[in-house]
Amino acid sequence: MNFKMIGRFLAQIISIEAVFLLPAMGIGLFNGEYGALKGFLLTLAIMVVLASALFAVCRKTEKLFGAREGMVCVSFSWITLSILGCLPFCLSAQTSFINALFEIVSGFTTTGASIFSDVESLPRCFLYWRSFSQWLGGMGVLVFLLAVAPSSGKDKGFTMHLLRAESPGPDVGKLVPKMKQTALILYIMYIVLTVVNLIFLLAGGMSLLDAVCTAFSTVSTGGFGIRNDSMASFSPYIQVVTTVFMLLSGINFSCYYLLLMRQLGAVFKDEELRAYILVVAAAIALIAWNIFNIYGNLADTLRHSAFQVASIMTTSGFSTVDFAADWPGFSQSILLTLMVLGACAGSTSGGIKLARVLLIIKSLRRNIRQVLSPNKVQVVRNNGRAVDEKILDNTNAYLAAYVIIFIASFLIISLDGMTTGTNVSAVLATLNNIGPGIEQVGPMCNFADYSALSKLVLTVDMLVGRLEIFPMLVLLSRSTWRRSANG
Amino acid sequence: MNFKMIGRFLAQIISIEAVFLLPAMGIGLFNGEYGALKGFLLTLAIMVVLASALFAVCRKTEKLFGAREGMVCVSFSWITLSILGCLPFCLSAQTSFINALFEIVSGFTTTGASIFSDVESLPRCFLYWRSFSQWLGGMGVLVFLLAVAPSSGKDKGFTMHLLRAESPGPDVGKLVPKMKQTALILYIMYIVLTVVNLIFLLAGGMSLLDAVCTAFSTVSTGGFGIRNDSMASFSPYIQVVTTVFMLLSGINFSCYYLLLMRQLGAVFKDEELRAYILVVAAAIALIAWNIFNIYGNLADTLRHSAFQVASIMTTSGFSTVDFAADWPGFSQSILLTLMVLGACAGSTSGGIKLARVLLIIKSLRRNIRQVLSPNKVQVVRNNGRAVDEKILDNTNAYLAAYVIIFIASFLIISLDGMTTGTNVSAVLATLNNIGPGIEQVGPMCNFADYSALSKLVLTVDMLVGRLEIFPMLVLLSRSTWRRSANG
Repeated sequence: MNFKMIGRFLAQIISIEAVFLLPAMGIGLFNGEYGALKGFLLTLAIMVVLASALFAVCRKTEKLFGAREGMVCVSFSWITLSILGCLPFCLSAQTSFINALFEIVSGFTTTGASIFSDVESLPRCFLYWRSFSQWLGGMGVLVFLLAVAPSSGKDKGFTMHLLRAESPGPDVGKLVPKMKQTALILYIMYIVLTVVNLIFLLAGGMSLLDAVCTAFSTVSTGGFGIRNDSMASFSPYIQVVTTVFMLLSGINFSCYYLLLMRQLGAVFKDEELRAYILVVAAAIALIAWNIFNIYGNLADTLRHSAFQVASIMTTSGFSTVDFAADWPGFSQSILLTLMVLGACAGSTSGGIKLARVLLIIKSLRRNIRQVLSPNKVQVVRNNGRAVDEKILDNTNAYLAAYVIIFIASFLIISLDGMTTGTNVSAVLATLNNIGPGIEQVGPMCNFADYSALSKLVLTVDMLVGRLEIFPMLVLLSRSTWRRSANG
Repeated sequence: MNFKMIGRFLAQIISIEAVFLLPAMGIGLFNGEYGALKGFLLTLAIMVVLASALFAVCRKTEKLFGAREGMVCVSFSWITLSILGCLPFCLSAQTSFINALFEIVSGFTTTGASIFSDVESLPRCFLYWRSFSQWLGGMGVLVFLLAVAPSSGKDKGFTMHLLRAESPGPDVGKLVPKMKQTALILYIMYIVLTVVNLIFLLAGGMSLLDAVCTAFSTVSTGGFGIRNDSMASFSPYIQVVTTVFMLLSGINFSCYYLLLMRQLGAVFKDEELRAYILVVAAAIALIAWNIFNIYGNLADTLRHSAFQVASIMTTSGFSTVDFAADWPGFSQSILLTLMVLGACAGSTSGGIKLARVLLIIKSLRRNIRQVLSPNKVQVVRNNGRAVDEKILDNTNAYLAAYVIIFIASFLIISLDGMTTGTNVSAVLATLNNIGPGIEQVGPMCNFADYSALSKLVLTVDMLVGRLEIFPMLVLLSRSTWRRSANG
């Protein structure tokens, strides 16, 4: 294991996080929130000391950097970011360490589940820091580092392994031959989408800080609200804008790149995008049919149905209604199913991702054909091209790991005595980075009532979900920690 | 597709079922239950006509009989058996067709979920027929046919394909080189286990018919009770005997064969058996710790904990307490998890089976090692021997199909407006052939409140679960129905 390289990398990550604390501190200073500011200042000091120490100890090495180091690097980075990022909350005595950790991991992983019952009473700089953490986590903080760091030309393997471990989806597609360029293009498109969303929100009469926070939460599909009722008290205009931008953020960003390159054909033939549109439309229609008698008119019914479907499918977690309390069981079951699916690979959304679901279904169909005709060689295709068997194996392993982690987490948190529906949805909501579940963790409730142990389990689930299981599982494997580096 | 051969086979299956109606009719005659008897007589007449017609139309052919025909044959047999087997209930106007179908499929698949709210008021011959259907389904009715039918020496492929499609578990082990002998040995061990259980029950003071019905339900891990409170009002002795025999029935029957052959070493080294003992012991201990304060003394706590664990893990579905109402959430979550696991492959139990769970975990570990060291070839081993990659592929496909069927069923039955916990557990309880779930389908409740559509979905789930998904999925595949038979 190349610990020195990982150490240097962590030092860079911490430096970036420290820089990103500054805008939040500015907001704190502007609003005179000196208690919160104290927390930020202490955190900044700790970060500076830690980063300097790491830079001093870990000098550059020429050793190999393989898939193993890439995975460990990503996991360590996210854990470090989370532990340091939660310090402002607990150093200003706003809440306990475990609550603060839950909250910031919920942010970085774009989950959006909160332990604060009254967010409107929080300092403004905290609201900003929560929302910004989602934006940073959405596209990936390591991707960000790759985009801005000076490239040495030598570490091609390094950047590739990192991107692969942090990016969502069964496979990483390069937009352009160079990884650094790919990361940069991704971030530019992400920033453009955020700014456009911001302009639409400002046009709806939102204040600047509110609009910035909401845009961060929307485009990252995070879902931290700035009001206690999430988005219920915002105007229909704001709700519709948010629905559209949540849906846009659930699309694979490489589709936007193809659009910019005017390859319209490739975009509209993309099987995942088609599946996405189909599932969204079907879910909106089914729920609208199911809840029509609650709202009585088509406009409200469609607005609420579309908002909730977009929010859950893209794993944002905003809500305009208390679907856990008011909607019938069928609609809740559809939402629970969407929680599992997630939106497209290569987007900022969580969940299993439609690309994986398609691969799982296709490999199942292949398997049935193979049972019937054992001697024929069958190939699984995606967008017309044959899929590498390794990716299929990985996808199946992903599903198995997902089920095992789901059951283990469910067992542990059920010690707290909540209902089965609550526990099932709490694990789904964190493992898929959604936010709210149903029953006792519904959209108008929060996770504060779970015990510290359960919060820790759910925190780990959020990280596992965001990093798509393997980088975290690798930490538990003995062969990761062996001396030889023949990976 | 070799339809003539399938037709002949169905005719044989129907004849066997007709013969098995006779004991039930004897009991009906003895107890003077003439209303029920009318239903049996009409059913018998229908069976005779149908079997004769099939025999007349489908003469022997020399055509190929492949895996495809084996799967279709098994599915058709079970569907035919179920539709004909439910006729006594609905022809005697005891209940509707869909309810009767649910009940008898619940029997044949050894699920044990009932739609009768007052079983004590049912005619004795119905109770016997219900219980017997479980016994017949437990080891497999096609296996029975293979064991008793005269072998022609030619159809080796035929028997192999049938056994493979009907037997539970990821792979079929032959006990002896000849399939017919294997089937015979399996049934003899099954009968011995049933008779020993019967003797123990009679020694506890049960009446003959009650003891026969209970032994049928126990050894087949079916779980149809003959009292409204399942096993709660039986003596602790009967409860302990039943616990032991449920656990024994959850073991792979080939272990018993190895025991008879004095290959003790092989039995105790069997990884699945070890996992089974470990999981049972851990679940009993955890639940006992969780419920100790309800019963106050260790003997009662352990008896109830062991009974419920044995019942759910082996997918029997008996109960001595209303765990859905009285036990805390943690114990219920453990039981829900056991529902998914199931006991050993090659036993009469349902669920995913521990053998598959072990394979899934091992192939996941292999996958992680492969991510770390992409160039090493990694092999998955079971009991020291390398596992065929095809079996691994099938196991992963099984899990994928399982999850997809689970979600689809859950969505449809949630139209009825039950709680999420009820719906989740109802699908688990039928797909894994267990019987009771939690909340509104708990052990002291029944499935009568679901709509006809939901009952049909759950009925299909029971069949899909018993036949381990693929034979039923094959019916939906286009390539099954193509003309060419190059399978």
